[in-house]
Amino acid sequence: MISKGEATRDRILETAAEIFNRKGFGATSINDLLGATGLKKGSLYFHFSSKEALGFAILEKARVDFLAFIDAALTGATPEKQLDNFFSKVMKTHKRTGFVGGCIFGNTALEMGDKESSFAAVIEKVFEEWIERLRTVIAAAQNLGEVRSSLPADVLAGHVVAAIEGGIMMARLKKNEKPLSDALTGIHDLLRL
Amino acid sequence: MISKGEATRDRILETAAEIFNRKGFGATSINDLLGATGLKKGSLYFHFSSKEALGFAILEKARVDFLAFIDAALTGATPEKQLDNFFSKVMKTHKRTGFVGGCIFGNTALEMGDKESSFAAVIEKVFEEWIERLRTVIAAAQNLGEVRSSLPADVLAGHVVAAIEGGIMMARLKKNEKPLSDALTGIHDLLRL
Repeated sequence: MISKGEATRDRILETAAEIFNRKGFGATSINDLLGATGLKKGSLYFHFSSKEALGFAILEKARVDFLAFIDAALTGATPEKQLDNFFSKVMKTHKRTGFVGGCIFGNTALEMGDKESSFAAVIEKVFEEWIERLRTVIAAAQNLGEVRSSLPADVLAGHVVAAIEGGIMMARLKKNEKPLSDALTGIHDLLRL
Repeated sequence: MISKGEATRDRILETAAEIFNRKGFGATSINDLLGATGLKKGSLYFHFSSKEALGFAILEKARVDFLAFIDAALTGATPEKQLDNFFSKVMKTHKRTGFVGGCIFGNTALEMGDKESSFAAVIEKVFEEWIERLRTVIAAAQNLGEVRSSLPADVLAGHVVAAIEGGIMMARLKKNEKPLSDALTGIHDLLRL
């Protein structure tokens, strides 16, 4: 059972994540957050000492959720099927939201990229963990002859994450699936023998 | 010869572009712009009626500059060499800045992506023009048997732009070239027969 305080904290995290992802972190004001959560300033600051602390908590939660998504999506009888399953889950997830929001890590990275911040460190870690998980499955698929071995698994994994992130960004901009679909089709052809 | 007014306008555009790209459009205040340009509020507003108008002018200028960059980089004796030349110019350009700033269109797209704005329309157009230019060269390379024909040229071109944009975003985050280099290596292998 979660306490009333924890429930409020979770509600703030969820509401604020949605606003940050839609408006951008920099453009979101404390008043936006108060309006959306219906909280008084004192309650908001009781749970999070600053907008930065709230942003950090959202990224940390998004990181845990995304790693769980990766692990759930990278399933299948063979490494090749695990990769296919992952790619279709990525498309399905973004189609479901109508390409609104995009990728919280990509969005925040681009907004915060040149500033010294604890945000950058969390986001870097997410991309590293994502690439590492894909690298392991790609290497296993290469060993079985399911994926081309002309490039090292870490380079392929890095390319895959770059193409997906760029595809999500452009699909979000256009609000249609073609950019992400082109990115995934290219990935599919690149990985195959 | 350009007038004093035009020179001031150009200086505002240049200074503001650098700040927007580093801090993000939303997080940049009018005071930041006044501080960086050394102008009084009245002079700034004489040239640009709002932060939005300034942002729009910067994107339009960046669009013209980037299309000129593409045309200058897509040169070489054969379509294949034009593509290779373009990819190495992309890497060179971002290496030169130490991966600070990244891609103004990707940055702004991710910050503004879900808002109704004239920005989104300019950025969409840039990506369309970029993809179209690459598509033409890729199609020519396919006709000569220099690039694989298993995928249509527009899908390959879309994939290429997605991978480059994602690679620039992650290279900017990490301040090292590996993410962009992995993206380009994957592109190279994908395009080759």
